[in-house]
Amino acid sequence: MWSRPRSACGVWNGPVTSNDATTAGAEATFAGMWRDLAPVGRDGRSGGYQRFAWTREDHTLREWFASEAERRGLDLTVDRVGNQWAWWGDPDAALAAGRPGIATGSHLDSVPDGGAFDGPLGVVSAFASVDALRERGFEPDRPIAVVNFVDEEGARFGVACAGSRVLTGAMTADRARSLTDADGVSMAEALRAAGRDPEELGPDADNVRRVGTFVELHVEQGRHLSLPEVDQPVAVGSDIWPHGRWRLHTLGEANHAGTTRLADRDDAMLGFAAAVIAARRAAESHGCVATIGKVVVTPGGVNAIASEVTGWLDARGSDESAVRRVVADVTEVVEEFGGLVVEDSWTGTTPFDPGLARRIATRLGGIPVLGTGAGHDAGILANAGVPTAMLFVRNPTGISHSPEEFATSEDCLAGVAALTTVLLDLAGGAS
Amino acid sequence: MWSRPRSACGVWNGPVTSNDATTAGAEATFAGMWRDLAPVGRDGRSGGYQRFAWTREDHTLREWFASEAERRGLDLTVDRVGNQWAWWGDPDAALAAGRPGIATGSHLDSVPDGGAFDGPLGVVSAFASVDALRERGFEPDRPIAVVNFVDEEGARFGVACAGSRVLTGAMTADRARSLTDADGVSMAEALRAAGRDPEELGPDADNVRRVGTFVELHVEQGRHLSLPEVDQPVAVGSDIWPHGRWRLHTLGEANHAGTTRLADRDDAMLGFAAAVIAARRAAESHGCVATIGKVVVTPGGVNAIASEVTGWLDARGSDESAVRRVVADVTEVVEEFGGLVVEDSWTGTTPFDPGLARRIATRLGGIPVLGTGAGHDAGILANAGVPTAMLFVRNPTGISHSPEEFATSEDCLAGVAALTTVLLDLAGGAS
Repeated sequence: MWSRPRSACGVWNGPVTSNDATTAGAEATFAGMWRDLAPVGRDGRSGGYQRFAWTREDHTLREWFASEAERRGLDLTVDRVGNQWAWWGDPDAALAAGRPGIATGSHLDSVPDGGAFDGPLGVVSAFASVDALRERGFEPDRPIAVVNFVDEEGARFGVACAGSRVLTGAMTADRARSLTDADGVSMAEALRAAGRDPEELGPDADNVRRVGTFVELHVEQGRHLSLPEVDQPVAVGSDIWPHGRWRLHTLGEANHAGTTRLADRDDAMLGFAAAVIAARRAAESHGCVATIGKVVVTPGGVNAIASEVTGWLDARGSDESAVRRVVADVTEVVEEFGGLVVEDSWTGTTPFDPGLARRIATRLGGIPVLGTGAGHDAGILANAGVPTAMLFVRNPTGISHSPEEFATSEDCLAGVAALTTVLLDLAGGAS
Repeated sequence: MWSRPRSACGVWNGPVTSNDATTAGAEATFAGMWRDLAPVGRDGRSGGYQRFAWTREDHTLREWFASEAERRGLDLTVDRVGNQWAWWGDPDAALAAGRPGIATGSHLDSVPDGGAFDGPLGVVSAFASVDALRERGFEPDRPIAVVNFVDEEGARFGVACAGSRVLTGAMTADRARSLTDADGVSMAEALRAAGRDPEELGPDADNVRRVGTFVELHVEQGRHLSLPEVDQPVAVGSDIWPHGRWRLHTLGEANHAGTTRLADRDDAMLGFAAAVIAARRAAESHGCVATIGKVVVTPGGVNAIASEVTGWLDARGSDESAVRRVVADVTEVVEEFGGLVVEDSWTGTTPFDPGLARRIATRLGGIPVLGTGAGHDAGILANAGVPTAMLFVRNPTGISHSPEEFATSEDCLAGVAALTTVLLDLAGGAS
């Protein structure tokens, strides 16, 4: 089971101050949870996090979640995919009575060498908001769940939001089971190693139906809220940009680096390099962003000419056709080198519930409304027809997916206060 | 211990024919050894080999070597580095009598997904030549050793010819021990895991002194012997081209691929791509070869902008200053992107013993004399002052470091015959 480390880790380093909707008790539990999570999967050298689905670190995080649920007397359920739900109130009874629940939370996994906030901030804030609601004696009309979605970043098996995708049927269980990590371990094998039955994996409509509304709080992954003309700690989300991932395969012939004449060689690395440059140029031309941040070379020896290079292209933008044009430009270059491009995932524009966003923005005193280039479980749930909203907490540098990712403690507590206000509003009841 | 697999693997697929200097018995032992080695570390899918220093596969190969030595009644010694020597005759007694021994052999490790011939052909041919010499009743004046150099390819720890480098003092034991593989395992840890004491590692002058002459037989790694105007099964080596390895580090800032504006990003992958293209252009300009076949990206996530990319540049050519110009051109580009270039290894032109090469070429009826762009343990020994020669066996496609690497069985046996003739000549004695 989870136990508190003897010393704080230093990621949470600001003062804990009071705020409108939170309470001193909730602020203290927030700080305590943050300290507890800080060392899990942390790389001592870089300060970044290595928290990948179904690893030992993930197991520790899941035990932490279960223990936080238990400490609050919340009912822990785990759906067919492994997502954890900690319910305050009986979701099925409420559903039968026409009052489906409100879920809030995010994920605990990270990208390789990721930051402390992307994911955990939403889960910790959700628990802290429950504490704040209880401390003020709130009795909700609708049950409230804190949720931890598994494998949101896709860092291990390559598909982002795998937990919510399988949950809602957006990805089949067969495909999920057959995804493999860098060591060739399939998700089915990883599940088995983690003590889960991979055959259990599948869509779980019963669990989705319980969620009448989903609200995900997340650290901002840009600098909009920090602009001098904006200068706000919290925003509400409007939509998720269209985005996708493509595998770029360039092909060559493995051969000796020292003895093969230039004229005789067919080097897959040259096509890859051209694709990297083409992706940047195309993103500039079409007003999008495009990134190649992962590459695998076969055979990968220092003195062997590459027979195959696989690069992963991530492309996004506010406009679907512009993103498609970026991919077309890159594909043209890859094909010139005799390679091919395979689409791993594509998600069109995902609007959050506009009425819900307006209601939240108004309730929170006219806070900014933001689109985002990042995918989230909230997007997957929105696509599955769940009325969904997001809250973003200011990130002064705009950096995320990096140890530099940051939000001040004041802004984090402003996020908890905002989420508490939203839950108060959505869950109805007496306070 | 080693045992023969029940079925042949198919890599050795030609008829075993008779030849001048070999004998039917030696040909049969050659074919048997080849079949025994064929499955060790073979990837069932690609047909290539994964035989890396101090792994389970390497252990199997070392046991095979020991058992071949034992079967022939050769005295197995292992030097401080782990290189295996199987002596026919007493090298120390002979050395004291002013008749230092003749060593021949090569290595058994491979590049990732390497071929069957690069390395093993030299070891198997050496044992077969001993068999041929014995079958004809040869009694050498000088002792003869078959040698298996460990970690020639440097596939695991990044430095080629590590076994012969440490042996001769060309690389310090401290540096070797601290080299790490892709999983962060140091050579010291790997040695310990393989049951060896890493503190034992070091130069071993006693073992080097025993070697009066070294002859390494190797598959050709180019197509010179296949040219219609040449058309010969075997050549003798003149020199090893100057060659080196450099690490190209380009630096950026890790950030979210979806939410970081192009203007705000510093993507280390762009500098890497430019370096790949620059390396090819520089090689063309200066008449050399240059290859980037290995790359490591940090953090390496699909949706994270690269904060650091390390590419390994391998550059070679017949002329030292031309190779230096290639590296200077690439360095200029890497530095433009704020990166840096670190030299991992550099070896100037390594001439083999010219008198020995002439003697061998003449003895073998005026066979071709070839320079080579590949590094070999023979080069390390030559640099350490050991009179050294190489024999090359025709490779019809010129492909090496790949599952496609090939030599016909006729040409392999021509190689054994040539090596047998050379040993007959160098070891003197009665036949």
